Amino acid sequence: MRIEGIPASAGYAEGPLFDLDQPPALYRGKASAAEENVALKAAIGKAVSRLTLLTETADADAAGILEFHIAMLEDDALSGPAFAAIDSGQPADMAWRQALDAEIAGYEASDQDYFRARAADLRDIRDQVLRALSEDSDMAAPPGAILYGTDIAPTRFLETDWSRGGGIALKAGSSASHVAMLARSRGVPMVVGLGTSADKPAGNALLDAEHGAIVVSPSPAEIEAFRQSSSSFAARQGKALIFLTQPAVTKAGTPVRVQVNIAYPSDVDGIDIDTCDGVGLMRTEFLFGRMLPDEETQYQAYRKVLEWAGEKPVTIRTVDAGGDKPVPGFTVEETNPFLGLRGIRLSLARREIFRVQIRALLRAAIHGNLKVMFPMVATSDEYSQAAALFAEEQAALATRGVTHKLPPLGIMVEVPSVAIAPEAFADVAFFSIGSNDLTQYVMAAARDNAAVGYLNSVRHPAVVRLIASVAAFGLEKGIPVSLCGDAGGDPAAIPALLEAGLRDLSVAPAQLAMAKAAIADVSV
Amino acid sequence: MRIEGIPASAGYAEGPLFDLDQPPALYRGKASAAEENVALKAAIGKAVSRLTLLTETADADAAGILEFHIAMLEDDALSGPAFAAIDSGQPADMAWRQALDAEIAGYEASDQDYFRARAADLRDIRDQVLRALSEDSDMAAPPGAILYGTDIAPTRFLETDWSRGGGIALKAGSSASHVAMLARSRGVPMVVGLGTSADKPAGNALLDAEHGAIVVSPSPAEIEAFRQSSSSFAARQGKALIFLTQPAVTKAGTPVRVQVNIAYPSDVDGIDIDTCDGVGLMRTEFLFGRMLPDEETQYQAYRKVLEWAGEKPVTIRTVDAGGDKPVPGFTVEETNPFLGLRGIRLSLARREIFRVQIRALLRAAIHGNLKVMFPMVATSDEYSQAAALFAEEQAALATRGVTHKLPPLGIMVEVPSVAIAPEAFADVAFFSIGSNDLTQYVMAAARDNAAVGYLNSVRHPAVVRLIASVAAFGLEKGIPVSLCGDAGGDPAAIPALLEAGLRDLSVAPAQLAMAKAAIADVSV
Repeated sequence: MRIEGIPASAGYAEGPLFDLDQPPALYRGKASAAEENVALKAAIGKAVSRLTLLTETADADAAGILEFHIAMLEDDALSGPAFAAIDSGQPADMAWRQALDAEIAGYEASDQDYFRARAADLRDIRDQVLRALSEDSDMAAPPGAILYGTDIAPTRFLETDWSRGGGIALKAGSSASHVAMLARSRGVPMVVGLGTSADKPAGNALLDAEHGAIVVSPSPAEIEAFRQSSSSFAARQGKALIFLTQPAVTKAGTPVRVQVNIAYPSDVDGIDIDTCDGVGLMRTEFLFGRMLPDEETQYQAYRKVLEWAGEKPVTIRTVDAGGDKPVPGFTVEETNPFLGLRGIRLSLARREIFRVQIRALLRAAIHGNLKVMFPMVATSDEYSQAAALFAEEQAALATRGVTHKLPPLGIMVEVPSVAIAPEAFADVAFFSIGSNDLTQYVMAAARDNAAVGYLNSVRHPAVVRLIASVAAFGLEKGIPVSLCGDAGGDPAAIPALLEAGLRDLSVAPAQLAMAKAAIADVSV
Repeated sequence: MRIEGIPASAGYAEGPLFDLDQPPALYRGKASAAEENVALKAAIGKAVSRLTLLTETADADAAGILEFHIAMLEDDALSGPAFAAIDSGQPADMAWRQALDAEIAGYEASDQDYFRARAADLRDIRDQVLRALSEDSDMAAPPGAILYGTDIAPTRFLETDWSRGGGIALKAGSSASHVAMLARSRGVPMVVGLGTSADKPAGNALLDAEHGAIVVSPSPAEIEAFRQSSSSFAARQGKALIFLTQPAVTKAGTPVRVQVNIAYPSDVDGIDIDTCDGVGLMRTEFLFGRMLPDEETQYQAYRKVLEWAGEKPVTIRTVDAGGDKPVPGFTVEETNPFLGLRGIRLSLARREIFRVQIRALLRAAIHGNLKVMFPMVATSDEYSQAAALFAEEQAALATRGVTHKLPPLGIMVEVPSVAIAPEAFADVAFFSIGSNDLTQYVMAAARDNAAVGYLNSVRHPAVVRLIASVAAFGLEKGIPVSLCGDAGGDPAAIPALLEAGLRDLSVAPAQLAMAKAAIADVSV
């Protein structure tokens, strides 16, 4: 039986299914309240050590999540009610579960998406401790297994040994989740949005995360076809590596610039600068996590990446909060956040926060080849206002004698109005097409909604036409045009993008080799 | 002090402010539980009679809301806990308030937008009874007052005597709410989205619902300017009435078709068919209220309007549920409903429900000049699938010997992909531009979100360019193109629409005269 889903991290896996939705194993209670108290303390301690161990080998992004979990486990306010329940006679597992479930219910009832989303973290913590209580010997997935369930906890992903293959198949989930991001960067195949089926599949399965499907109880013919696709994928990956260290060039000899998209300063640690033409998109949302970042923290983050890139350009995008990236104390709750107060709209509405980022960028600019772009610009007035704030902060820094430099200012092209009527933006320094958002607005289909996923194609003629017209406008006016959405790293989309006139793509670091290989196959 | 908001129903009002947010007056308790019991019963009865009286003079839409309130008031499950609390010694007002507040909290905590939205109805019912308990002599707004507050209950609107002027000024609210719809159809000036101010305005105020503002404690100069604008508006309205019975024609003599948009079959009762060129948009969401409608109910509703229109065309839009129009048991909960499973997407996903509507339309088609259009079409494949369902149901009716007719099938142009690449739709019978949705997608700004309201303009060059290109494509291919969004009835937008090549607009019935007057001023 083949079940269709959405690819979240390309690749193939063949192996036994492991049920993510099974409840934690049973805990065998102790005799006295004092013993139960000790057991719970030990289990919490065990969960903390386990997380701490994971933190040491984790990326900055993964570490951030783990540290948040550790901080919550060490918070007496969270465990207090459980210990009180033990004192009144409950066994440790029930006491902990009830205390956490009550807390989770509170988060789930919140008005704010942000807090509702945190309920998943609390469930993860709850199960970490329950697993520690029951020694969880039967909870680990066998190496090479395909983890199958409704959703997957970040710690589960980090604890799993992926060195011997395996993959992730989720009934719900999203290709924009934290785990999907981790899976892509580690090359773990992952499919989301498989839907809930009546029966509970078991046994061996085939995960095709290149096209987005899982085959359970496969027939010999299905296994045969799967292994062919899988070999072909591996061969393409292998071949692609040859291209990694070469400049990208098409079959016809046309050079194409290929830059990388990064989400964290630490992302650059794993990239050889010689394999890319710079950073086409550095996101800055990572700075806006549990609290609003100060100027120095931002300055150091930008400086690290600029110094790594040397003379090559680093395009930093001002904070694109809102949409699917809420920030407590900054973004607002909205019925349609993708069509709401996000990106430059929010920065212009909360200028005191924006000005901090502007100062950090102006100061960092002296350390490399910085370019700055604004997300979600819809009108030229928004661009002018943002540029005016740069000028104001520049003047203020000059007055104070602080070393700084004004970088070239460009805009993301992701709101259709800009692509349809680009003539209003003849004075911007550069355009960067955000193909994910542009596509979702042109097709009126949310990019994280599986039910309308069939509409969300960058290769729809309407989207390609807009991209071509922006490329043509840039050529005519001498304004550089690049593209930094997922389409830039998608071998299936690259021919259409180059035919539309683009010669500058920015892709996820893991896609660099494949993108260059795909470019070499295009005849333009 | 002038406070800016969003116009929800054009017009002017000058009068004393009436605070909508004041708590209901105090109830003076009786001596015994038996007396309290009688008092609560009497108050509920009084509220029911008051609502029943309102129902008799209400439109179909208002009556639907009121009947829902009456049904809830007569539901023992709702009042039971209050009577139980009275038996245990509480006064009637506290007992009722606590019982309803508990119920309201339950609705507010719901996962589903639909149920959360119903909390407002429950608050309305709660206050109706509390007002009845306290005789509410001090609760009625004086005639001509400007009702000012966070939001307004539908029953409050219906109970207010608007014959001596007055208006509505809301800190929150939405121009898409039920009350805004009622205000526009009755000509009551209304402004929403004024925001919350620290101080509590009182005294006389000026409501400018043409531009969207309220002036509290006005200066003599402000009063003078206000009265001039108000006279000019009244003069324009008076002058417009002269145009109502004439066919619409521009200054240059170009004829323009002007049709009406209707939301309920009963809307046509107040319209003289000779004043318009037919129905350019009949919505069918009214049928999908508390339950899914059967074929016969739909057939009768469509037939009524077709017979009223005679030979003139009636364009019925298949159900556009989803987005901001959830239907229990039909639509799904989504993070970005405007970009989700709505319109034709939902109808194609729930074909058993769509087929019922198709059969009703095929049967009703014999009673007039029916045209049918599909909302939210993004790809030609969606149109083909919908047209194929019409062909299937037609064949089935023919087999069963049921009288029917296949109407011309067209599409709404509201997803940008259609306007950008219309060539895929060369075989549709007609296009109807939905300017509200088209604008919100082109600008990536939700039409019901005040924070991004500044972006939501149909006159933005990108939106006008798309409208012009659809008009040109229709002209070239001989496919009729009309427009049925709010822009069609907006005198400020009409010149741009005619210059873009449109010659067929569909407007709210209340805007017919003003639209024709505005057309007469255009030189194309």
